[in-house]
Amino acid sequence: MIIVMKLDASEEEVDIVCDSIRNCGFRPHISRGEERLVIGAVGSADNKERLQSLRGLPGVKELIPISQPYKLVSRELKPEKTKIRVGDFEIGGSEFIVIGGPCSVETREQLMETADAIKEAGARMLRGGAFKPRTSPYDFQGLEVEGLKLLAEARERTGLKIITEVITPEDTEVVAEFADILQVGARNMQNFALLKKLGGVGRPVLLKRGMSATIKEFLLSAEYIATHGNDRVILCERGIRTFETALRNTLDLTAVPLLNELTHLPVVVDPSHATGKRSLVHPSAKAAVAIGADGVLIEVHPRPHEAWSDGPQSITPPEFEKLVTELRKYASLESRYIHGDFGGEKN
Amino acid sequence: MIIVMKLDASEEEVDIVCDSIRNCGFRPHISRGEERLVIGAVGSADNKERLQSLRGLPGVKELIPISQPYKLVSRELKPEKTKIRVGDFEIGGSEFIVIGGPCSVETREQLMETADAIKEAGARMLRGGAFKPRTSPYDFQGLEVEGLKLLAEARERTGLKIITEVITPEDTEVVAEFADILQVGARNMQNFALLKKLGGVGRPVLLKRGMSATIKEFLLSAEYIATHGNDRVILCERGIRTFETALRNTLDLTAVPLLNELTHLPVVVDPSHATGKRSLVHPSAKAAVAIGADGVLIEVHPRPHEAWSDGPQSITPPEFEKLVTELRKYASLESRYIHGDFGGEKN
Amino acid sequence: MIIVMKLDASEEEVDIVCDSIRNCGFRPHISRGEERLVIGAVGSADNKERLQSLRGLPGVKELIPISQPYKLVSRELKPEKTKIRVGDFEIGGSEFIVIGGPCSVETREQLMETADAIKEAGARMLRGGAFKPRTSPYDFQGLEVEGLKLLAEARERTGLKIITEVITPEDTEVVAEFADILQVGARNMQNFALLKKLGGVGRPVLLKRGMSATIKEFLLSAEYIATHGNDRVILCERGIRTFETALRNTLDLTAVPLLNELTHLPVVVDPSHATGKRSLVHPSAKAAVAIGADGVLIEVHPRPHEAWSDGPQSITPPEFEKLVTELRKYASLESRYIHGDFGGEKN
Amino acid sequence: MIIVMKLDASEEEVDIVCDSIRNCGFRPHISRGEERLVIGAVGSADNKERLQSLRGLPGVKELIPISQPYKLVSRELKPEKTKIRVGDFEIGGSEFIVIGGPCSVETREQLMETADAIKEAGARMLRGGAFKPRTSPYDFQGLEVEGLKLLAEARERTGLKIITEVITPEDTEVVAEFADILQVGARNMQNFALLKKLGGVGRPVLLKRGMSATIKEFLLSAEYIATHGNDRVILCERGIRTFETALRNTLDLTAVPLLNELTHLPVVVDPSHATGKRSLVHPSAKAAVAIGADGVLIEVHPRPHEAWSDGPQSITPPEFEKLVTELRKYASLESRYIHGDFGGEKN
Repeated sequence: MIIVMKLDASEEEVDIVCDSIRNCGFRPHISRGEERLVIGAVGSADNKERLQSLRGLPGVKELIPISQPYKLVSRELKPEKTKIRVGDFEIGGSEFIVIGGPCSVETREQLMETADAIKEAGARMLRGGAFKPRTSPYDFQGLEVEGLKLLAEARERTGLKIITEVITPEDTEVVAEFADILQVGARNMQNFALLKKLGGVGRPVLLKRGMSATIKEFLLSAEYIATHGNDRVILCERGIRTFETALRNTLDLTAVPLLNELTHLPVVVDPSHATGKRSLVHPSAKAAVAIGADGVLIEVHPRPHEAWSDGPQSITPPEFEKLVTELRKYASLESRYIHGDFGGEKN
Repeated sequence: MIIVMKLDASEEEVDIVCDSIRNCGFRPHISRGEERLVIGAVGSADNKERLQSLRGLPGVKELIPISQPYKLVSRELKPEKTKIRVGDFEIGGSEFIVIGGPCSVETREQLMETADAIKEAGARMLRGGAFKPRTSPYDFQGLEVEGLKLLAEARERTGLKIITEVITPEDTEVVAEFADILQVGARNMQNFALLKKLGGVGRPVLLKRGMSATIKEFLLSAEYIATHGNDRVILCERGIRTFETALRNTLDLTAVPLLNELTHLPVVVDPSHATGKRSLVHPSAKAAVAIGADGVLIEVHPRPHEAWSDGPQSITPPEFEKLVTELRKYASLESRYIHGDFGGEKN
Repeated sequence: MIIVMKLDASEEEVDIVCDSIRNCGFRPHISRGEERLVIGAVGSADNKERLQSLRGLPGVKELIPISQPYKLVSRELKPEKTKIRVGDFEIGGSEFIVIGGPCSVETREQLMETADAIKEAGARMLRGGAFKPRTSPYDFQGLEVEGLKLLAEARERTGLKIITEVITPEDTEVVAEFADILQVGARNMQNFALLKKLGGVGRPVLLKRGMSATIKEFLLSAEYIATHGNDRVILCERGIRTFETALRNTLDLTAVPLLNELTHLPVVVDPSHATGKRSLVHPSAKAAVAIGADGVLIEVHPRPHEAWSDGPQSITPPEFEKLVTELRKYASLESRYIHGDFGGEKN
Repeated sequence: MIIVMKLDASEEEVDIVCDSIRNCGFRPHISRGEERLVIGAVGSADNKERLQSLRGLPGVKELIPISQPYKLVSRELKPEKTKIRVGDFEIGGSEFIVIGGPCSVETREQLMETADAIKEAGARMLRGGAFKPRTSPYDFQGLEVEGLKLLAEARERTGLKIITEVITPEDTEVVAEFADILQVGARNMQNFALLKKLGGVGRPVLLKRGMSATIKEFLLSAEYIATHGNDRVILCERGIRTFETALRNTLDLTAVPLLNELTHLPVVVDPSHATGKRSLVHPSAKAAVAIGADGVLIEVHPRPHEAWSDGPQSITPPEFEKLVTELRKYASLESRYIHGDFGGEKN
């Protein structure tokens, strides 16, 4: 059971609710976000009915009994899909969002060349890692703040919005200063301190599914961000770890329609990281549209063979343009559109 | 290295080749099929060049050095896609094949009702289990031969071709007598005695991927059938076993374009068994078309809640018709068609 | 619910029980073994109480309501551990059984040399594959019947009992003619036709766990053999397939004490196939004793680098003797003994 | 290749080495720890020999070409096992270390009762979570600093050393103030910001293997801590995520001897978290000794059914004492001992 407090509830009212929760045999857990104060009543489901007595208390807006362990992100709580506005477009609406860019921000030349090309092709956002979580300490760890500045410069130049990864709570402010959406990587999906911090960041978060995270754990991680005040979370399926070694990961495409049943949050797909193989990006992206995703992240690099990371899965700007052109047709079958489609003239 | 013998090679010539292989430090392995006699030279790759001396021997058609462990099914051997003719249609060509039917053949009424409906919707083949491999000995094991007869009756009635499972070498003949395509289930993907038997069965085989089979193992199992004389093998992705328990299996859709790179054999997808959830069949089937599959197997039951097995993932005939109608549009984007499409009149 | 029939129950009595089961709203499933006739009542658990009426019927020995899906092999049915007699020793009793031998029977010299050495070290049984299930059709497939004869010769010579694999129902008789225990390989764990056949074979069966088989599926496969008349089944943990590729498989040692809670059948461990790495066999075998296994299968080859299969994980006869000597100490801590221990004189 | 600098190398010398690395066509990556400055030369292995020219540069101590991707933790670099001193005992030496305590620090009474009992039984360290990483935001998140104080009080009282988890870089100092060893949980194994911070913490780190981390990734995470100045890292196998759902995780015991081959770091096992089942802790802990672990972490709670987390896998103090008594015998077979063994008097 979760107790949603009124916006103007006083501290005293919150204290009274917490005491009442304890009297019912539960422990209160306060999740204080920017726009919402929610009190979870944690304890044995046996005494759940006793909590009904809270309904009349001052400051209490509503009691929500939810069958799933995740509450705020569940479709039970909010049946309509969430649309997340970024600048002049929305993620989760009828527009299918294409995000492109390199794995890592490497040089100004590389980034601007990529940004110009994907903008032309119809992309809405530019992705690029400035803080890179790398398996080996000897691998390139990213340009850090310098990379963020280049991303911001590319935004100025093209109008594309920026998405980039944040890997530790301490960096949240500086990344939020430059980025339009903050990305949480697969390895940090259960970095709960980071998730809590992102609850107060004031920007949408793209949460990548952990390599061996179940759907339930994935949604509980989104719930962390939501209970800490930020419900603008975009979920990203990027491949899971299985016994199969022919590809880097196994892209779990059926997770997309499953998530669409369980949560109201938008869901995007990253076929580049999932497959790790350039030639599979194109068919996988088409399948992502057909299966109901709200967008795709595609790794693009002007010269993949020179990329400092993830070259084998990066496509070139011309390949990206060809891909987007084809995705438009699939989006159209799903009654969606991709930005930049002017009555087929460009196609 | 494999040595392909001429069609009219004599036993003596085969013996001489085998002796020569031994002299080169390899063990010969004869795979005698109906239409082809292939001799594998098994041994250390170190002495591979010595095998070149076989090139001039009488009866030898060609030597094929192949980098993959699977040879006959590899795209290296045969760059063009294999089309497998069944009656008046082909699997692997520009037609996208829809196969429908119940998990198990239960009753005449159930089967005929389903067959009539899927025929009308555009299906080419009727699927239905007569011999059922069930995890528990206490579960319904299929109607066996009686089930085969009902399938044949449905073929008479509708013109649909029949695909059904064979679970042991002993049953191969009787199943082949009734079925147009023999199916090997996931649990039997490495039942090598069965695979060898199917090399001589004279009918196409649909080989389902084992629950934890790598792509390489999958193709080596197809190779077993091919080396034993039957290269009319259709591969079927039906979900793999991973840590994720939200769905029955994880449908590995990216295996489809990967297989299309590695082998010339047709590839179909079974979204029903993979997901185990009715509501996911529709989006998964659309994704299967978009990602490059040559067909889908869909579980259809007139009254899913009464099904003796796999009810939760079966769709009804009206849902099936709706699905096929939508798949036509996706097939069209892939420059393919689905049977029964008469200029959009039906749609 | 399962209904166990009396040994002298007539066909008529069986028919009456089946009719009564149907009248209760269930489907009867007859499992006719050599020594037992069991009728499963398959259907909705809702009407389970109605089956109580069967209790009084002629020919009915007992009704067993069992909470697990596997019945005959469950510890609920039989709380005491099953001991399986083979010649003059028992598997599942206080003796810890050591089984050694090569992956494949290759030559008389190789086999006799191995047999002599492991006999001397304390082994009770000789393992060796004559029919080999190989992933690739181009790999050595075993000496087949010639291999069986060599195994029988080694038995004559040493007194060791023989365990070897059977891979298809058709070969069951010939393998049973030569072997003391028939092995079902991991790839055949759900080859139900084979399991059913082994129900009537009159010899103990060693059932290896499938590469991605859950404990429940493993026990249901044992149940197949048991319901078809053979409850002398030994379970073998041999590693499961996971994401980890550093070793061939992941040896699931905790499955041993878990199985000991769930079933009365003996459990042995195969550390050689599981790890695929010679240096890990020794520590893994010690752990197998400590965790409660009833025996181990160890791959032994006089010249591992010349082995036709699985050389990298085979240990030499001297290493085997050293291993057994050490295992004796661990067995002793478990209040068990290993054959050939004469008051420590040999150690 | 890694370049180890002399302890007294100047900044200028470091700069020159970095420039030379760039001239060889590599990117320099400086890992500055408290006690060591290591420069990785990152780039294509093709030009590796050119780095040999660095050998003569001022400030350079040695060049280490290492075949594994992890360098400082590899057994290639340091063949002898690392012993990590904590107070008056060592981890990784001939003493087998037993660590006990509750999953979470809950109350003073719970903690002191547990600490007294495990001390008496022979434990060296007390474990207990104060900062808890929980999958759900609604679960108990730990007593935080209050919990740390209780742990310190228990240390005062019993002399047991303290091990507790740190979940974010920001908390490193406060946890290090109270704890003797800092634990990194499975979910944070690739929280690289945290790992880097722990490089400078001045206390040993117990690094738990991530739920789907390969051995290579596990060792690369240890390498992160080492390259940032702290080579006192203890590895902990705690179960991996597989398809099997009968237990919480699959305890990968063979990882222990494999790690013993690949790294010089000590390795301990956590059978409680791995199995999630009280009755399996005992046999798994015995197997951990037999397979070569340097210690075990055991969850102990005076009243497991009242535990706020992980009750089902916690054992009681009397069970713990019984377990340690038995582990002594297994340790003895491995030529090791467990603290508190006074010639068998206590046993």
